[in-house]
Amino acid sequence: MHIPAYAALSAGAPLQPMAIERRALRPDDVAIDILYCGVCHSDLHQVRNDWGGSRYPMVPGHEIIGRVSAVGSAVARLKVGDPVGVGCMVDSCLACDQCGHGEEQFCRQGPTMTYNGRDRVSGETTLGGYSRMIVVREPFAIGLSPKLDLARAAPLLCAGITTWSPLRHYGAGPGTRLGVVGLGGLGHMAVKLGVALGCEVTLVTGSAAKADDARALGAHRVLLSRDAEAMKAAAASMDLVIDTVPVAHELDPYVRLLDVEGRIVVVGALEQMPVNAAALMRGRRQVSGSLIGGIAQTRELLEFCAERGVYPDCESIPMQRIDEAFARMERSDVKYRFVIDMASLAGA
Amino acid sequence: MHIPAYAALSAGAPLQPMAIERRALRPDDVAIDILYCGVCHSDLHQVRNDWGGSRYPMVPGHEIIGRVSAVGSAVARLKVGDPVGVGCMVDSCLACDQCGHGEEQFCRQGPTMTYNGRDRVSGETTLGGYSRMIVVREPFAIGLSPKLDLARAAPLLCAGITTWSPLRHYGAGPGTRLGVVGLGGLGHMAVKLGVALGCEVTLVTGSAAKADDARALGAHRVLLSRDAEAMKAAAASMDLVIDTVPVAHELDPYVRLLDVEGRIVVVGALEQMPVNAAALMRGRRQVSGSLIGGIAQTRELLEFCAERGVYPDCESIPMQRIDEAFARMERSDVKYRFVIDMASLAGA
Repeated sequence: MHIPAYAALSAGAPLQPMAIERRALRPDDVAIDILYCGVCHSDLHQVRNDWGGSRYPMVPGHEIIGRVSAVGSAVARLKVGDPVGVGCMVDSCLACDQCGHGEEQFCRQGPTMTYNGRDRVSGETTLGGYSRMIVVREPFAIGLSPKLDLARAAPLLCAGITTWSPLRHYGAGPGTRLGVVGLGGLGHMAVKLGVALGCEVTLVTGSAAKADDARALGAHRVLLSRDAEAMKAAAASMDLVIDTVPVAHELDPYVRLLDVEGRIVVVGALEQMPVNAAALMRGRRQVSGSLIGGIAQTRELLEFCAERGVYPDCESIPMQRIDEAFARMERSDVKYRFVIDMASLAGA
Repeated sequence: MHIPAYAALSAGAPLQPMAIERRALRPDDVAIDILYCGVCHSDLHQVRNDWGGSRYPMVPGHEIIGRVSAVGSAVARLKVGDPVGVGCMVDSCLACDQCGHGEEQFCRQGPTMTYNGRDRVSGETTLGGYSRMIVVREPFAIGLSPKLDLARAAPLLCAGITTWSPLRHYGAGPGTRLGVVGLGGLGHMAVKLGVALGCEVTLVTGSAAKADDARALGAHRVLLSRDAEAMKAAAASMDLVIDTVPVAHELDPYVRLLDVEGRIVVVGALEQMPVNAAALMRGRRQVSGSLIGGIAQTRELLEFCAERGVYPDCESIPMQRIDEAFARMERSDVKYRFVIDMASLAGA
């Protein structure tokens, strides 16, 4: 079976049409016709091998919305026609302590990533959602509420869960003074979800131009990181800061915003970054990181968004314009997430 | 009233005898005849103005053991003759939320430090424990159990509480896999207290020579930070790491020792230090800091140590040999804490 897809054949090459194979269904597999796939900044990093370890041909895409088209013999929970979402993981050991309490992203054997991973059975490189069809192990296909607007939901599977997980893990809710640093794909979700959870949300940004946008998304306050007076006045005023900046940066200006026992959670940058120990000591402040989220928590997010009508701001593109979308994403020219309409790939 | 003391008259000057004044007792003050005073590495930093802000003449010393010699008219809890301890703080607002729940070290107005601080009433520079007598506000003089060996207890007031506070705050006890980085004044207390609390204690050190010492203090394992194989084998094996290294260093080698949700608490260095965000994300690991501890927690520690017979390893010195002690401390030539016997200052 030849599946239409878009692939990079080498590091940094433009994506191009390519027919791929998907495996025959194992007993606990589901096949999914892909309707929509979000475009994550990490797709571009991986295509370019920015982080090393990229394997080609690469089919990116880990914000997948589709419908079940076939199920394996042991599949009980899903049936043909069900709307489902697939995020960054398509498998894990499901036997270790971390999988046992729903943190498959911390699987002791490592989860199988949706693309550029290795299938646990065949050892083949996994291929992602920039394609018409995908096969995943049933627990990693999340059944969706009929209330969910499928065309707008794809970015919840990565940008959404990446910000939802720390908000929920650290108990954000009414009364929480939440700071969100950065207003891109992740940041705009953190603002929307924080507002929906009842937090008092401050967007912290280096760009005055983003202030109106942030308020339109629901942020209660905007703090300009270059305004030394305003930053000083905001010292010790936040309980939780979600730091979505996607490149290395100093953490200290944001650590200083934290009240006693406050916590900054890095979800964007992967680099080594400096932090001042004395600032952590004063007030027992904490720096932590968070990595996507488990399947149960992703399901919780999707149900929350379906019920509450909380969606990413999406710009729909056809598959054929992916390289243009990458280029615009690089210059932050998107509010706030591209979503590929896979109907565009019908005749590839 | 002229009180014998030792003071630095300028940055880095040798300490010299000096007669100081102490204030007349306010209603909630107690006067304390000082019996012993520990020598903290920060005393040397402050004498040299390494951190800026030092004021001279400076009388260092914030690990104080003594006996109440007089009480103000409103003092109810302590009486003349009671053995008491005084640590790094001699006052705070006692009205804010932090003071209200026993975290005077995070007082919203800032606590009054035992030396080089500013008295809240007079504005005068506070003078510390390298002297025969001190006057402090009653809540900051901690009554001691008759079981406590006064000659060995002084370092509990800073080195002890600095390590006890994160151990208790993060619930260390039986089953906790505790790492202690560094084996000096703080590190040796972290090992002893961790062992006494029932933790499984691993000392992490750059010096193979310290392995036997660590085991003698009760550490169950020693991990050499320069042994790449051993460090790799110990990855994700610890729940809590107390980092007592007193200078800037990379945190990543120790972050990698943490299991999922594990936490490293910096209590030694005050500098800016690099930390890898990706390592924090994988396993939701946390970097935090901790600053001494509140009065109630210090009291808890002193009672714990009196009951359990847990003491710092002290080397007694007369006041006159303080500069020699500073020099030896600088080359780590002390196991593990100098304590000044203030009887030596009788005729100063």
